[in-house]
Amino acid sequence: MTYCVAMRLNQGLLFASDSRTNAGVDHISTFSKMNVFEQSGERCLVLLNAGNLATTQSVVTKLRKRIGSDEPNLMNVSSIFDAAELVGDEVKGIITGYERGQANQGAIDFSCTFLLGGQIKGEHPRLFLIYSAGNFIEATRDTPYFQIGESKYGKPIIDRVVKPETSLREAVKCALVSFDSTMRSNLSVGLPIDLALVDTDSFQVTFRHRIESNDPYFGTISQQWGEGLKRVFNGLEPPDWLDI
Amino acid sequence: MTYCVAMRLNQGLLFASDSRTNAGVDHISTFSKMNVFEQSGERCLVLLNAGNLATTQSVVTKLRKRIGSDEPNLMNVSSIFDAAELVGDEVKGIITGYERGQANQGAIDFSCTFLLGGQIKGEHPRLFLIYSAGNFIEATRDTPYFQIGESKYGKPIIDRVVKPETSLREAVKCALVSFDSTMRSNLSVGLPIDLALVDTDSFQVTFRHRIESNDPYFGTISQQWGEGLKRVFNGLEPPDWLDI
Repeated sequence: MTYCVAMRLNQGLLFASDSRTNAGVDHISTFSKMNVFEQSGERCLVLLNAGNLATTQSVVTKLRKRIGSDEPNLMNVSSIFDAAELVGDEVKGIITGYERGQANQGAIDFSCTFLLGGQIKGEHPRLFLIYSAGNFIEATRDTPYFQIGESKYGKPIIDRVVKPETSLREAVKCALVSFDSTMRSNLSVGLPIDLALVDTDSFQVTFRHRIESNDPYFGTISQQWGEGLKRVFNGLEPPDWLDI
Repeated sequence: MTYCVAMRLNQGLLFASDSRTNAGVDHISTFSKMNVFEQSGERCLVLLNAGNLATTQSVVTKLRKRIGSDEPNLMNVSSIFDAAELVGDEVKGIITGYERGQANQGAIDFSCTFLLGGQIKGEHPRLFLIYSAGNFIEATRDTPYFQIGESKYGKPIIDRVVKPETSLREAVKCALVSFDSTMRSNLSVGLPIDLALVDTDSFQVTFRHRIESNDPYFGTISQQWGEGLKRVFNGLEPPDWLDI
């Protein structure tokens, strides 16, 4: 499993991804799920992936191989929408190819999902969620964030906190709380967490940080959140109709 | 979808279930998912169900039809383990029967899960989670609770709070917070919530309450919890390494 989240806020874009992959509980490895495509001052795209590692690695490798050629690629398309279409086409092509070779179609799950966000000169910052079928949806003011992978445990806090007006500083706090909740409940999501911020109109990754297991700030957040939840719970009014 | 939770605590057993069923978002109905089998002072069993409604209704009806006959039934077996075996056998039999009739096996999901807990004279209180295959597991001191249905959103708070020593009063609070989180995130889980408590060695439902949409206590808990979470979040230390 995997957990990735991306937010499109007025101040900029936030990306966060865990780095645990597993093929069974006895085959756990660390792979970064964050890829950056940047030409400082002109474009900055960040791609996060979840799902079948063979598929996602192939997609990223093929996207990188195109760069420098004359064909459309992530460094020459003129919009994030076009970039999402490129990613979607690669995903669909690779999965279709894998499935065509299978004697027993559907027996292996080759599927994956991507989050692609960033800004290209001439556009505002945009964020897309790309499915295995190659199709995709875009974040809006009403829904300014997307998650892929193990999304449920970490969703409630984002729903309560994140709006387009939320500052990147608050959003980082929120993303880390969301990761803390997810990692507590699902062993297949694990540190390190890759974090990247792309300020609006900066056309570059303005902040990047890898949170390892000994990260003091993440430890503090995790502890303060846990203690805070218990305090709030203990302060809840007891059921007065319960005579025990 | 559905959400049910049951806890086996030193003070007694807690059962809670929502009552929304849906066959698509345009076909939503209210069905209680809680069934009680009680002979006051001698035995008390509570059965919660999730999954295919046709299957779960058939299972419960067949279990009820057996009562009064000489064959083993929920009112004459001598242990909760035997009762779980009866439920499991019914589940397996009904699903196998449905599937045998299908031209395209596996096309319809007939599966369901049950939580069965209670106490029969001569035994301590016990709690089982019964699967579609008819097999089941029992709650222990290490894992004193089970959930069925949409379990993820409401799991973190239970993991943080519930231990065998937790009082039923605290457990009710915890169950309601767990339902509040679940209903906020999944529209297919909805009020009313059926709540039942079975005190240890009482051999009866000692408390039963149905939480409707205008329940003042549930409203208070929901509001206090939401405000508390925001307060804790706002009080979390900001990331000092983030210079924005």
